[in-house]
Amino acid sequence: MPFANAFMERFGLSIPIIQAPMLGAVDSRIVTAVSSTGAMGTLAAGALPPPVILEEVADLKKQGKPFGANLLVVPKVDPDSETVDHAVHRLAKWRMEFGLPEEFRPNRWSEDFRAQLDALVEAAPPAVSFTFDLISREDIAAFQKRGTYVMGTATDVREARAWAQAGADAIIAQGYEAGGHHGAFLSDGNDRAVGTFALVPAIRAVTDLPVIAAGGIMDGAGIAAALLLGADAVQMGTAFLLTPESIISQPWRKALENAPDDATRLTRVYSGRYARGIENKFMREFRPTEKDIPAYPVQNALTGELRRISGQAGSSDALSLWAGQGVNAIREMPAADLVRVLWDETREALVLMHKRMG
Amino acid sequence: MPFANAFMERFGLSIPIIQAPMLGAVDSRIVTAVSSTGAMGTLAAGALPPPVILEEVADLKKQGKPFGANLLVVPKVDPDSETVDHAVHRLAKWRMEFGLPEEFRPNRWSEDFRAQLDALVEAAPPAVSFTFDLISREDIAAFQKRGTYVMGTATDVREARAWAQAGADAIIAQGYEAGGHHGAFLSDGNDRAVGTFALVPAIRAVTDLPVIAAGGIMDGAGIAAALLLGADAVQMGTAFLLTPESIISQPWRKALENAPDDATRLTRVYSGRYARGIENKFMREFRPTEKDIPAYPVQNALTGELRRISGQAGSSDALSLWAGQGVNAIREMPAADLVRVLWDETREALVLMHKRMG
Repeated sequence: MPFANAFMERFGLSIPIIQAPMLGAVDSRIVTAVSSTGAMGTLAAGALPPPVILEEVADLKKQGKPFGANLLVVPKVDPDSETVDHAVHRLAKWRMEFGLPEEFRPNRWSEDFRAQLDALVEAAPPAVSFTFDLISREDIAAFQKRGTYVMGTATDVREARAWAQAGADAIIAQGYEAGGHHGAFLSDGNDRAVGTFALVPAIRAVTDLPVIAAGGIMDGAGIAAALLLGADAVQMGTAFLLTPESIISQPWRKALENAPDDATRLTRVYSGRYARGIENKFMREFRPTEKDIPAYPVQNALTGELRRISGQAGSSDALSLWAGQGVNAIREMPAADLVRVLWDETREALVLMHKRMG
Repeated sequence: MPFANAFMERFGLSIPIIQAPMLGAVDSRIVTAVSSTGAMGTLAAGALPPPVILEEVADLKKQGKPFGANLLVVPKVDPDSETVDHAVHRLAKWRMEFGLPEEFRPNRWSEDFRAQLDALVEAAPPAVSFTFDLISREDIAAFQKRGTYVMGTATDVREARAWAQAGADAIIAQGYEAGGHHGAFLSDGNDRAVGTFALVPAIRAVTDLPVIAAGGIMDGAGIAAALLLGADAVQMGTAFLLTPESIISQPWRKALENAPDDATRLTRVYSGRYARGIENKFMREFRPTEKDIPAYPVQNALTGELRRISGQAGSSDALSLWAGQGVNAIREMPAADLVRVLWDETREALVLMHKRMG
């Protein structure tokens, strides 16, 4: 009998791997590729307007494979003009260096989360996941009534308990090693971060819900290790960044391919929220003042154009080079092939270790 | 055939577990207990004067079991009086609260590392390990000439490479989750820390030396996971803190037994070096100014008496409550029994997972 658990059975998965939502790095094509293998792709819907959410989820549903859609739980903000002026002024030198007008103020700070959420309930994908904050018990129940499975991202035990109490179906345990934005909402996501190796068993110990391990998982041995620590499945992001389905810019790609030892750090300089990426000039320059930077989504909106232009100009200096601590183990391979290789490796690693135990 | 590898064969170990050196928490009794099982105990020699090092190592050698001895690689320091005055002044309120004279200046800042090192070469235990910095190629060779195996502690890949280049026999990969002092010497040990889940495979990928995983490992499933990630053995500290062989104070014990969710943080307020412990009043009070605190060993020497008295007074307020992120999985059990249970669990976890793979 093949490997199975309640989480996998719910979706008919044969491979307990979820491809992580990665805004700006992948689109719905990778979801299709991953979901075709018996694993689960995730649509990164955080930046999509409600009509596009409806459309993309409907398209994916037509393919008849299990998949998830992820939203970032972003509050409506109304920052005072002094805060904004200061943040805008801080970026002026960088913008001019890339040939952009000195000042930039976006029309709005983010998509309307409430409208996105309502669209996603209506779209009713097989699964949804949420990052950056809790959603309400009522909103979770609304998804469940439509047959949608709800996963909440937790970076520590208290956050896992909060999702369980709100009625979530599963917990994504996002460890300190993870690339990109961290989902912390009861801490600032830096000083109180928990490593994957401690986080997965700690969350496993306080809930009967399926636990999905994320952060630092790059190969089959890592998947086997996560399953041993108590995970029901793993969520992997960085591992997929060099697939042909990835839409990252050339300088980001190059930075991943040539990452030196110990390349990544947590930073809030790009978005106002802690995220992990390969350290570059922009990160180093703003590190000493990073606590003064306005919170997400304000800084995120202010740096968006600069990051895009840096990528287009072939420079990694002002680009958010999101990557997890396992970046040096990244492989270049089509997403569907990678999933199959990963699962073969997982089984081989366990067979070999079992043999060594005599 | 039982589980084996070159590291275990070198010492005739039947169980790939090293009990971590924990200054102030254990003494040579736990080394005897752990080494009696086929695993490896470690004498925490960092605070021992050279004659005591000679004596304790000689006593342990008489027992004919494999063991290690650990030293902290501490520089000779001569801090300027202004720095010291400021640090002394900062502690005055706390000292008075515990009935101590307002001011305290130690006779010296630490044991003479060079003298400790020479004594340890002469004592020639089966193994030595070092934390806080590299030792020289010549010193490593001096141990090896006496038949002593040399293990270096690394918290990132660059540190592992440095130990390998200096000629060490094995690398202890100490992850972000680990309790107590962190051994970082090429970074400050905080912003650039690497989680165990990413660190072990990353070091495994750059060296053929045995890798010993440390940080967040609390049970057999964790040991199995570490072996899958590429470790040859594990080093566990927090797991042993509630054994009868532990000599920790009552308030520390209580704090471990009653640790809330997500209890630990990295801090440099006790010693001037990043270490992980359960957050308490002293940590919270000095956190905002923790970057101003003089580096190890100065702050360590200045707070030593206060920490001791806090423990004796039954208060955990000014006590360094060292513990790793796995603290909630701690068990109360004799050290030798714990080692046997851990190894049984490891084998069971692997057998079970192998079965589930079909």
